[in-house]
Amino acid sequence: MLEALKKKVFEANLRLVEYNLVVLTWGNVSAIDRESGLVVIKPSGVPYSSMTAEDMVVMDLKGNKVEGRLNPSSDTPTHLELYRSFENIGGIVHTHSPWACSWAQAGRDVPAYGTTHADFAFGGVPCTRGLTEDEVNNEYELNTGKVIVEEFKKRGIKPEECPAVLIHRHGPFTWGKDESKAVENALILEEVAKMAYQTESVAALSESSNIGIEDYLLNKHYQRKHGKNAYYGQK
Amino acid sequence: MLEALKKKVFEANLRLVEYNLVVLTWGNVSAIDRESGLVVIKPSGVPYSSMTAEDMVVMDLKGNKVEGRLNPSSDTPTHLELYRSFENIGGIVHTHSPWACSWAQAGRDVPAYGTTHADFAFGGVPCTRGLTEDEVNNEYELNTGKVIVEEFKKRGIKPEECPAVLIHRHGPFTWGKDESKAVENALILEEVAKMAYQTESVAALSESSNIGIEDYLLNKHYQRKHGKNAYYGQK
Amino acid sequence: MLEALKKKVFEANLRLVEYNLVVLTWGNVSAIDRESGLVVIKPSGVPYSSMTAEDMVVMDLKGNKVEGRLNPSSDTPTHLELYRSFENIGGIVHTHSPWACSWAQAGRDVPAYGTTHADFAFGGVPCTRGLTEDEVNNEYELNTGKVIVEEFKKRGIKPEECPAVLIHRHGPFTWGKDESKAVENALILEEVAKMAYQTESVAALSESSNIGIEDYLLNKHYQRKHGKNAYYGQK
Amino acid sequence: MLEALKKKVFEANLRLVEYNLVVLTWGNVSAIDRESGLVVIKPSGVPYSSMTAEDMVVMDLKGNKVEGRLNPSSDTPTHLELYRSFENIGGIVHTHSPWACSWAQAGRDVPAYGTTHADFAFGGVPCTRGLTEDEVNNEYELNTGKVIVEEFKKRGIKPEECPAVLIHRHGPFTWGKDESKAVENALILEEVAKMAYQTESVAALSESSNIGIEDYLLNKHYQRKHGKNAYYGQK
Repeated sequence: MLEALKKKVFEANLRLVEYNLVVLTWGNVSAIDRESGLVVIKPSGVPYSSMTAEDMVVMDLKGNKVEGRLNPSSDTPTHLELYRSFENIGGIVHTHSPWACSWAQAGRDVPAYGTTHADFAFGGVPCTRGLTEDEVNNEYELNTGKVIVEEFKKRGIKPEECPAVLIHRHGPFTWGKDESKAVENALILEEVAKMAYQTESVAALSESSNIGIEDYLLNKHYQRKHGKNAYYGQK
Repeated sequence: MLEALKKKVFEANLRLVEYNLVVLTWGNVSAIDRESGLVVIKPSGVPYSSMTAEDMVVMDLKGNKVEGRLNPSSDTPTHLELYRSFENIGGIVHTHSPWACSWAQAGRDVPAYGTTHADFAFGGVPCTRGLTEDEVNNEYELNTGKVIVEEFKKRGIKPEECPAVLIHRHGPFTWGKDESKAVENALILEEVAKMAYQTESVAALSESSNIGIEDYLLNKHYQRKHGKNAYYGQK
Repeated sequence: MLEALKKKVFEANLRLVEYNLVVLTWGNVSAIDRESGLVVIKPSGVPYSSMTAEDMVVMDLKGNKVEGRLNPSSDTPTHLELYRSFENIGGIVHTHSPWACSWAQAGRDVPAYGTTHADFAFGGVPCTRGLTEDEVNNEYELNTGKVIVEEFKKRGIKPEECPAVLIHRHGPFTWGKDESKAVENALILEEVAKMAYQTESVAALSESSNIGIEDYLLNKHYQRKHGKNAYYGQK
Repeated sequence: MLEALKKKVFEANLRLVEYNLVVLTWGNVSAIDRESGLVVIKPSGVPYSSMTAEDMVVMDLKGNKVEGRLNPSSDTPTHLELYRSFENIGGIVHTHSPWACSWAQAGRDVPAYGTTHADFAFGGVPCTRGLTEDEVNNEYELNTGKVIVEEFKKRGIKPEECPAVLIHRHGPFTWGKDESKAVENALILEEVAKMAYQTESVAALSESSNIGIEDYLLNKHYQRKHGKNAYYGQK
């Protein structure tokens, strides 16, 4: 059942490792076949190195397992809620990539600081509100999905225009037209989250009187390598 | 003697290199065979690239070498003290991984800032008190183990619920039900220590009036790639 | 047409991946054949893993495509403006490398803080002014090139003496006598941008009474490894 | 002449690349044959990928080239001054590794913050004074060596007890009993310089009321993975 999609989802999961977005068994990728309404998702807690395409689990949108001998990712109810509410998305990724998690743990949106971000999302990446104690204790993973949908609705953001979100104290979910774009967006989110931190840091720092190369040393090093009497390297 | 366990401990040691937790000859992994009370541990100062399973050293819990032509890790007395006091653990890892060491050198616990941490430990990772001059000068490595045990007792933390500790000015020890879990926990500790630093940094920084992409530039870049007249890429 | 140059430009593009300066389809390298006035440039949005030398696009300096079945990089007008204005350069690189982008997003020049920088450029690397709304909305990529040329003219910097620039809110362009030097300069810019951040950070931090190893612990660790009674390692 | 030593110096140079301490043609390693007083050193500006053992240059301690068709490293006079003054060292390394350079550019010693440092050096790693304009303009590389020797003498540090120095605004030199130990020390210096920055950063940051996982979320994530009703992973 859905063998081609299982293969794509499996390969997309492996790309999380290749892109250094996950360690150990962390992270998961899913995709939906919109025609049948069936979702293919990574099994829970299986090492990437021993996982096969056949290990992918098939779920329906109500949360019933349709095929597969393994348990689906424990985050499956979050994925399903997003597929139900964001009707144009075809693939979803969850990781604990360090920079996206750090903004999520700090409870801050990732601001749009440059064109790398603008190539990816039409504005900052929102961080959700925290879940209440009741939302955590009852159907936690489903409520995680609901809080994402609520945040996008409240802020009037279309999921097509911002393919990423941060869950408060937790980490990122990203999506796209298929599982492959969702993985790309997970990688880009990590890049822009890192750059946003670095941008704020560079803006907060400044030159001081204690640093800055002396003119004669600048001149010496530049000229010994590039000047007409340069003596660095071979003739 | 204990050839299967030697092989496992050897392979677990190599994983420290693979996970970028150690350089040169740094770090060590051990495991205990609870039935015989014998501990298998890495030899001291041997390069990972030339080490073999046969080089692993077998110790009893009193600190006597039972088998092996090489000296055991100089941190062996710390391992043994932990095996004696934490009766449910089966494997121990010591590294000088940079983020865990940095928190240890700063003398701070790694706070629990998000779900990545909560998946790993039921609360912050404690940093021990510093050893006294006397504790350093007499049986230093044994006292390192004792200070860990003291810290967990004083704080009422069960070693099963927090599989990691920071030694003041030194670095981390982690453990688990076996050597493999202990290595996983060394990797996770490094991840959460890094994220905890990043979380505090992101929380301390802020948007300023000097940064933030202009609306018209955000719009241009987003539309040239995703808009209906997009001209990035191929048709 | 220009097959040897296409091969060089293709290989220079792959080096961006090897040097960790780009992810996905980001970044682009071009080179000019000054005799014919023709420019060879990477196609837009093509993955590095499937790209071939034959995919390179040949443009004239007026922006007409002379050869190639693919669209050229969307940044082509910026490259052409630089080749028209900076007559001694032979190759150009654009990346979104994280440290250079972070300084660009913060709107700051990269100051010359040491000899690594002085080996590369005769002074700080300038960050341009931001483009106006009008410059962004009409011929954006051409205006990006014009703003670079304006900045160098205004500051009296010769492009030979500073082979790099930061575009405000965007990222770096670098150049050189050929595409190979331009790629080297992209790598060096990223190194000096990272080091400049680190230098300002180290200068802003300081020792405090809470940190600093105790003398007896310093002595113990140094002596157990290097002292006359050292017991680390093997005999 | 000295073929065995050339091979060792060549291989030690390659280890700088393997350890990520250098990019492009940066960095250099030398070793001395104390019996003959001859020094083997990397040639200037040759790419590591095409370099061979035969490319190593042999110098005498007065600075005369004894063998080799290539120019020696432009830093050769610094190496020779150190071999003349530090009589017990057998190998020297110079890199522009980013963390060591950042401390050098900030003009700060690397403080001894923990046992990783104490395993390496008996106290902080000194940063020299800056060279005067005259010292830079006349025999710059020789004066770089002299300033290192002056700094160790002034502070009463034995080169055997601290195998590393930072040149003000420039970067590190390290040494050891042979070229192999000198490379190890270059790697360790980069580690302790990185950790020293991180230690000061962690010590300067703090927990705030805005961060810290809520108890019920900590409990939920810990229990869903480790509790008796855990549902993460497979049975």
